[in-house]
Amino acid sequence: MQYNAVPLQRLVEQFERMPGIGRKTAQRIAFYILGLPKEEGLSIADAVKDACEKIHKCSVCCDLTQDEICPICGNSGRDHSVICVVEDSQSLIAVEKTNEYKGVYHVLHGAISPLDGIGPDQLTVKELLKRINDGGIKEIILATDSDVEGEATAMYLAKLIKPFNIKITRLAFGLPVGTDIQYADEITLSRAIEGRQSM
Amino acid sequence: MQYNAVPLQRLVEQFERMPGIGRKTAQRIAFYILGLPKEEGLSIADAVKDACEKIHKCSVCCDLTQDEICPICGNSGRDHSVICVVEDSQSLIAVEKTNEYKGVYHVLHGAISPLDGIGPDQLTVKELLKRINDGGIKEIILATDSDVEGEATAMYLAKLIKPFNIKITRLAFGLPVGTDIQYADEITLSRAIEGRQSM
Repeated sequence: MQYNAVPLQRLVEQFERMPGIGRKTAQRIAFYILGLPKEEGLSIADAVKDACEKIHKCSVCCDLTQDEICPICGNSGRDHSVICVVEDSQSLIAVEKTNEYKGVYHVLHGAISPLDGIGPDQLTVKELLKRINDGGIKEIILATDSDVEGEATAMYLAKLIKPFNIKITRLAFGLPVGTDIQYADEITLSRAIEGRQSM
Repeated sequence: MQYNAVPLQRLVEQFERMPGIGRKTAQRIAFYILGLPKEEGLSIADAVKDACEKIHKCSVCCDLTQDEICPICGNSGRDHSVICVVEDSQSLIAVEKTNEYKGVYHVLHGAISPLDGIGPDQLTVKELLKRINDGGIKEIILATDSDVEGEATAMYLAKLIKPFNIKITRLAFGLPVGTDIQYADEITLSRAIEGRQSM
């Protein structure tokens, strides 16, 4: 596809590479930006530039932040003796949304996946061990995804942390709230039976 | 939703406003950009900035271009006596893709829609009339959309151009190629019967 303007072509190509965006949506977004008042279009460019330049990893939990230490790690009202280990910032956001968790986090930025060439060295495992080594930690909650990579990562971390004699927990597996048992898959259901609780 | 970083929050908000992008996709795109090497992220910002600053309307056909006159208007190999009038650049791209049309274009940048407060003054009707007035035009093809606004715009333009004694045509209505007649809607089918051609 040849557009009548090179910058337009370039814009469409940049959007086309993004996840969940096809050729048509990329074109629609490009024309949407061109249809905006110039200063609004430029403020989009500015937001992208700003994010790329200012956001980096928190020196404690490795979550993305614009400060040296992220607001959660810097919050003295939170329980710094409990660390919830998540794969990425999106998982952290999901846990925060529950409004249940008052501890702090550690963001791994991925999960162990030998097929994709991702081992412990590509993750922030070293930083996590340093935090544990520094002391004051009572519990590590392993909140990696419940897929193969997430499970493998959780098992790997549990083995690493064991010698420190800290309580290690994993998020509960079971039925999602609001589902019919008849539609639950076998693995989820057998995990739910396994983890049944007295009432 | 509060993110741990203000620039991230701003980035998600900018993407969320775009057509076809919801909260989840906006978040996914933002994290995708943050996950890119810094120079690649900055080149996205640059593409947006570049497009906003360099792209403007062609002084002849009003299509979006980075030059004073767009490549189509500047191409002496095309038939400058036939003007295909389209609502937007996307329609122009669609017509170009057929590789059938060798004339030039005029982009209206919208269609008459009183409910949205869009009248002829908001479109590039004046520029079209000036081109016709300057002479040398043999045919005007009205290729506005086949919805209510597009039809109204075509009728309005036809009435305006009539006094110039130029051939005025409208794209044919009928069955899309490859469809079953049983699934065609009544209006399309009656238009197809109306416009039947001898063979």
